[in-house]
Amino acid sequence: MFTINEDYLKLPGSYLFSDIAKKVAAYKEANPEKELIRLGIGDVTQPIAPAIIEALHKAVDEMGQADTFHGYAPDLGYEFLRSVISKQDYKARGCEIEADQIFVSDGAKSDSGNIQEIFGKENVIAVCDPVYPVYVDSNVMAGRTGEYDSSAGTWSKVVYMPCTAENGFVPELPKDKADIIYLCYPNNPTGTTLEKAELQKWVDYANENGAVIIFDAAYEAYISSENVPHSIYECDGAKTCAIEIRSFSKNAGFTGLRLGFTVVPKELTCGGTHLHSLWARRHGTKFNGAPYIVQRAGEAVYSEAGKAELREQVAYYKKNAATILDGMKDAGYEVYGGVDAPYIWLKTPQGISSWQFFDKLLKEAGVVGTPGCGFGPSGEGYFRLTAFGTYENTCEAINRIKGM
Amino acid sequence: MFTINEDYLKLPGSYLFSDIAKKVAAYKEANPEKELIRLGIGDVTQPIAPAIIEALHKAVDEMGQADTFHGYAPDLGYEFLRSVISKQDYKARGCEIEADQIFVSDGAKSDSGNIQEIFGKENVIAVCDPVYPVYVDSNVMAGRTGEYDSSAGTWSKVVYMPCTAENGFVPELPKDKADIIYLCYPNNPTGTTLEKAELQKWVDYANENGAVIIFDAAYEAYISSENVPHSIYECDGAKTCAIEIRSFSKNAGFTGLRLGFTVVPKELTCGGTHLHSLWARRHGTKFNGAPYIVQRAGEAVYSEAGKAELREQVAYYKKNAATILDGMKDAGYEVYGGVDAPYIWLKTPQGISSWQFFDKLLKEAGVVGTPGCGFGPSGEGYFRLTAFGTYENTCEAINRIKGM
Repeated sequence: MFTINEDYLKLPGSYLFSDIAKKVAAYKEANPEKELIRLGIGDVTQPIAPAIIEALHKAVDEMGQADTFHGYAPDLGYEFLRSVISKQDYKARGCEIEADQIFVSDGAKSDSGNIQEIFGKENVIAVCDPVYPVYVDSNVMAGRTGEYDSSAGTWSKVVYMPCTAENGFVPELPKDKADIIYLCYPNNPTGTTLEKAELQKWVDYANENGAVIIFDAAYEAYISSENVPHSIYECDGAKTCAIEIRSFSKNAGFTGLRLGFTVVPKELTCGGTHLHSLWARRHGTKFNGAPYIVQRAGEAVYSEAGKAELREQVAYYKKNAATILDGMKDAGYEVYGGVDAPYIWLKTPQGISSWQFFDKLLKEAGVVGTPGCGFGPSGEGYFRLTAFGTYENTCEAINRIKGM
Repeated sequence: MFTINEDYLKLPGSYLFSDIAKKVAAYKEANPEKELIRLGIGDVTQPIAPAIIEALHKAVDEMGQADTFHGYAPDLGYEFLRSVISKQDYKARGCEIEADQIFVSDGAKSDSGNIQEIFGKENVIAVCDPVYPVYVDSNVMAGRTGEYDSSAGTWSKVVYMPCTAENGFVPELPKDKADIIYLCYPNNPTGTTLEKAELQKWVDYANENGAVIIFDAAYEAYISSENVPHSIYECDGAKTCAIEIRSFSKNAGFTGLRLGFTVVPKELTCGGTHLHSLWARRHGTKFNGAPYIVQRAGEAVYSEAGKAELREQVAYYKKNAATILDGMKDAGYEVYGGVDAPYIWLKTPQGISSWQFFDKLLKEAGVVGTPGCGFGPSGEGYFRLTAFGTYENTCEAINRIKGM
């Protein structure tokens, strides 16, 4: 008799967004005349920029002609895309990341979920709390996290690094053994950042303690502060301890096009084995490349026209972020993030719970956000708003909240 | 200190195609004037059909406008695609597979590699020999296959089911315990098929013995014989024991567009757990959907115009297959497959090895094929040719082989 992966059954279920959906549906039924504004999920709303649309059309035409048709893509991704990433995302910032250390994929979520597979089951993972759920869940499914304590909302073998207003959302170096450290900066969900000197401490810790850092830089495009690193490879020694994951979803609106990449430096080894060769093996065995037309779209992100258009698109969302940040401050809220990130993290007023504030915001303002407790126990008492709506809706949401 | 997944290190390395590439490169350097014909790899050469190109352009335009832009796709895939698959691939053949049992993905290779993850580590897998390497390699990486015997080319915990000319390429039901049985029909690499009564035996065996069948039907579009099932769900009882994986790569030339799907019937359970919910959880945690534009391209595969164009495209490759099959027979070879599949499997002449025949074909005819031993020990003494070249090249290759 075949058996199933019992570790899957340990997952408590992703009730957060389904609970939100249920509450929203009930509210809409009771208040059909009220127009809801959704600042909850992390999906973008602006259309794909013209330079990228043009590149897509051109690539589609190529696929329709025998002499320009493209079949299976190279395992690591097309050279035209990897080389422009190497040049513009890394070498332009002084990071010596060559094209052959870049693995193009169908998105940062896949890479975030799959990367744990190249590590042994016995590794202890450390995550910020609150945290993007994929890091923890993918390790639960691999049997790496021990038992779930449903009252605490924590796993017995996971090292949690609380990020709260008390520590300025800067996690402390783990006191317990931690082998694989997940860091996401600019941070989802808090919208906060680490300055270069702070990130350097983590790189030094990893090198000194034989840990590896999985650095999720999906929101890099939102950084405008000067002392915030865009890549972990801006820190000395990161190539011997860090893997970096990037996305095209938030800088170029590719949530529905699917493109991302992961950097595994050739200097990153464990007992003589290059992690690069392990990840290459995973790519070669369980993946068959991102679509040619989407890789051409990715290339257009780095063109002069593409960059100009995307600067505007990111500026649009950053204006939303500033509108939320300033508006909520005006309304008397304690607000964080939102400067170098598309997320605004706020403290719920009068110590009410995340879910109580969700209900209040829905009923009194018709605005949907995300309860902070959905991202981990230290998210209780906090709430996330996102900058990915339209500007008009964002302003309207703030006005409604001010009128509460 | 972090550790790596040691099971990755057990993989003997995929030398097959790199060895082929090296030999071809050396030959080309020595014979720069000679034009090589490649009938080795399984990649297609015909461009994407006009109806699909049109659908892609339309979807690209939608992505460029705010009111028709599409962000994150639904976890299982868009309803418009899943419902047409349900209707045309299944219900039209009498298989009651509903849209909500279909999971759209970025291709059959990803699904073939990832599906093992929802099963326990202790399961014993059974594979045909020769076999598509992904089934075995993905289980090696999960630590499910025991130790490798490099002289035999086999894993200690894998049940091998030889498929050779002696048994008409029909595998025998496993005598040893087998929990997860991989079957690929029409078969890669042998190009042979199972008739419905033969496949029914496997379904009955699985139901009686508590095994699960992973049925890879990537080459379904090439079936023209009447008694060959297009789906395992044409067999009675398959919904309680079988998962089916399908591809758009070979019926519609999507090798570079990336689209596939997997059917997990809701009737398929283990100790009360629905495999459907496990696969849904994997999709939800480690994948973020196939691109909207590619799912629209997939929908066009099922349109009247798309179907008409793709019938021609498949007929084109089937003509190549017949050209190879008949031509090789004329030339005195013992040849198999090629009727309901794009692969032709031939016995090497005078008992020479697969690699010796590879060298002979390369040097004497300038034709590149794939040594059968690359697909497993029972592939030694066999050789694979594919029908995915152009018709002109295919004819020329056969003429050259006849002149050897």
